[in-house]
Amino acid sequence: MTLTLALDFGGTKLAAALVNSGSREWLRYERCFSPIDGDAKTDLEIMRSLIHSLLQGTSPSAIGVSFGGPVDASTGTVRLSHHVSGWENIPLKDLLEKEFGVPTSVDNDANVAALGEYHFGAGQGYNSLFYITISTGVGGGWILNGQSWRGAGGMAGEIGHIVVDPTGPICLCSKRGCVERFTSGPYMAQNAKEILQSQQEYRGGEVLRKLVGNNLNSLTGQIISEAAKQGDNLAEEVLQKSAWALGVGIGNVANLINPQRFILGGSVTKAGETWWNTLQNTAKKTALPEVLFEIVPATLGDDAPLWGAVALAENL
Amino acid sequence: MTLTLALDFGGTKLAAALVNSGSREWLRYERCFSPIDGDAKTDLEIMRSLIHSLLQGTSPSAIGVSFGGPVDASTGTVRLSHHVSGWENIPLKDLLEKEFGVPTSVDNDANVAALGEYHFGAGQGYNSLFYITISTGVGGGWILNGQSWRGAGGMAGEIGHIVVDPTGPICLCSKRGCVERFTSGPYMAQNAKEILQSQQEYRGGEVLRKLVGNNLNSLTGQIISEAAKQGDNLAEEVLQKSAWALGVGIGNVANLINPQRFILGGSVTKAGETWWNTLQNTAKKTALPEVLFEIVPATLGDDAPLWGAVALAENL
Repeated sequence: MTLTLALDFGGTKLAAALVNSGSREWLRYERCFSPIDGDAKTDLEIMRSLIHSLLQGTSPSAIGVSFGGPVDASTGTVRLSHHVSGWENIPLKDLLEKEFGVPTSVDNDANVAALGEYHFGAGQGYNSLFYITISTGVGGGWILNGQSWRGAGGMAGEIGHIVVDPTGPICLCSKRGCVERFTSGPYMAQNAKEILQSQQEYRGGEVLRKLVGNNLNSLTGQIISEAAKQGDNLAEEVLQKSAWALGVGIGNVANLINPQRFILGGSVTKAGETWWNTLQNTAKKTALPEVLFEIVPATLGDDAPLWGAVALAENL
Repeated sequence: MTLTLALDFGGTKLAAALVNSGSREWLRYERCFSPIDGDAKTDLEIMRSLIHSLLQGTSPSAIGVSFGGPVDASTGTVRLSHHVSGWENIPLKDLLEKEFGVPTSVDNDANVAALGEYHFGAGQGYNSLFYITISTGVGGGWILNGQSWRGAGGMAGEIGHIVVDPTGPICLCSKRGCVERFTSGPYMAQNAKEILQSQQEYRGGEVLRKLVGNNLNSLTGQIISEAAKQGDNLAEEVLQKSAWALGVGIGNVANLINPQRFILGGSVTKAGETWWNTLQNTAKKTALPEVLFEIVPATLGDDAPLWGAVALAENL
């Protein structure tokens, strides 16, 4: 029996798991938070200790790695991390191959999670699909003809930065009205805060204010979902706009690539039925009537990158 | 020496050409207009006469067909034509295989033209590219990993119907602000006409009015380009909006799929330097800074579908 080692450098957390090659159940599993003021070195040190605790003296036959940031998948070199310093141009594949002496594959988390959902999750049997993760940011990974499609420069999948409203607010990428600018958790929080601060009269927002004890800086996407569930109109409005923007993005993608399935993961997808309904309706309206597709929730949750790393390592 | 027969059912014109397999020069070539009140039967009759005039008693070893409308490429069945009646569910591949006794492949004109530019035109050596045709409508065809990407239901490539301005004017597809609604020749004409009709005071438009002898119904995309070249501000504005919308569309596509090249064909691409500059600048601004690509003019012109039909027939 050979062993496959799966690693997930997630930005805020680190995870590692071991599986008997071909199995669909973890043999052993370790997970911990990345230290807040850490860097690439501390992340690598912590990951090493997780690995040794998993391996218990045995050796894997292959390693797959999901990295939360841009990666050159052809060489397995990390370009950088937007969350952890010191990751610039780290040859992660080479480092691990030298240390463990086995073939290692590295790719970014969206591509790897897409691969995970395709082989082990909501994408099984759908050989053209787009996986979208919606949490702190909005990103995506393609499976086309049953293979990862990374794009000519490894940059494919950036649905978060397609423009859906050219007169919308300015996004961190400096354009106006990107999908991410409306849809992500932090931007929902920012949008709610701005409406609350500019409000002359109350049109909702009471529940929101109550949930954060009037401290608008502690607003989150999750709190907005909660307030919307409790009937807060302002929270509802922000949440609808989040779903609308992603719905337009998905409809546009359907017209362009016509995949069978869209699979959605990430914390914002737990926002509730209204969010999902608006998303589904907007996407259907944006796509041409002949363009058919389904939008379904991811099923592997936080383990999608790890399972994708297994698929990557096992060359599935 | 074996012969390849290439056919182009273009909606307003019919063309057929014969080539020695492997050659890049036409052996014989025929082209004519489709009768204005014709239907599928008359188109097929005319095409038959073109073919017999080309073949002069010889037999091709394979036939490739470009059809101007939705096609089920897996069965070679035409779904319909938006220009010519009677094409509903015509099994074009079967008809031709029965009549000529050789393997026949059929696909829609955007996919076939993409294949043509890839193998014989501006796409040579670029195995991920998006071909866009901009004339009466706006459509596209994908080459990914050196193969046509048609989408799960054969509907991929519809860049004309992605939304770039949700508050824009209503498109024939019933959505607001699609790329096609701003970019195509007929919509440019309509937009110019509407501005001219609603104008209280003149802010340009004099050249436009002069070019059509004040008959606004005879405005075309080409006349708008001509007026813009002669310094007409209103024509310039309409042309800029056309280039802007397509530029946003291309930038969005680059973020999503990250192809190496965009290849643009069709009458509107002859609109001049200003149109191209605005298009290039808008696309670059819309794409993330790390997403690199080129936008270049098609080189096969009206023959792109025929050359693509050769590639299709020869299984290149």
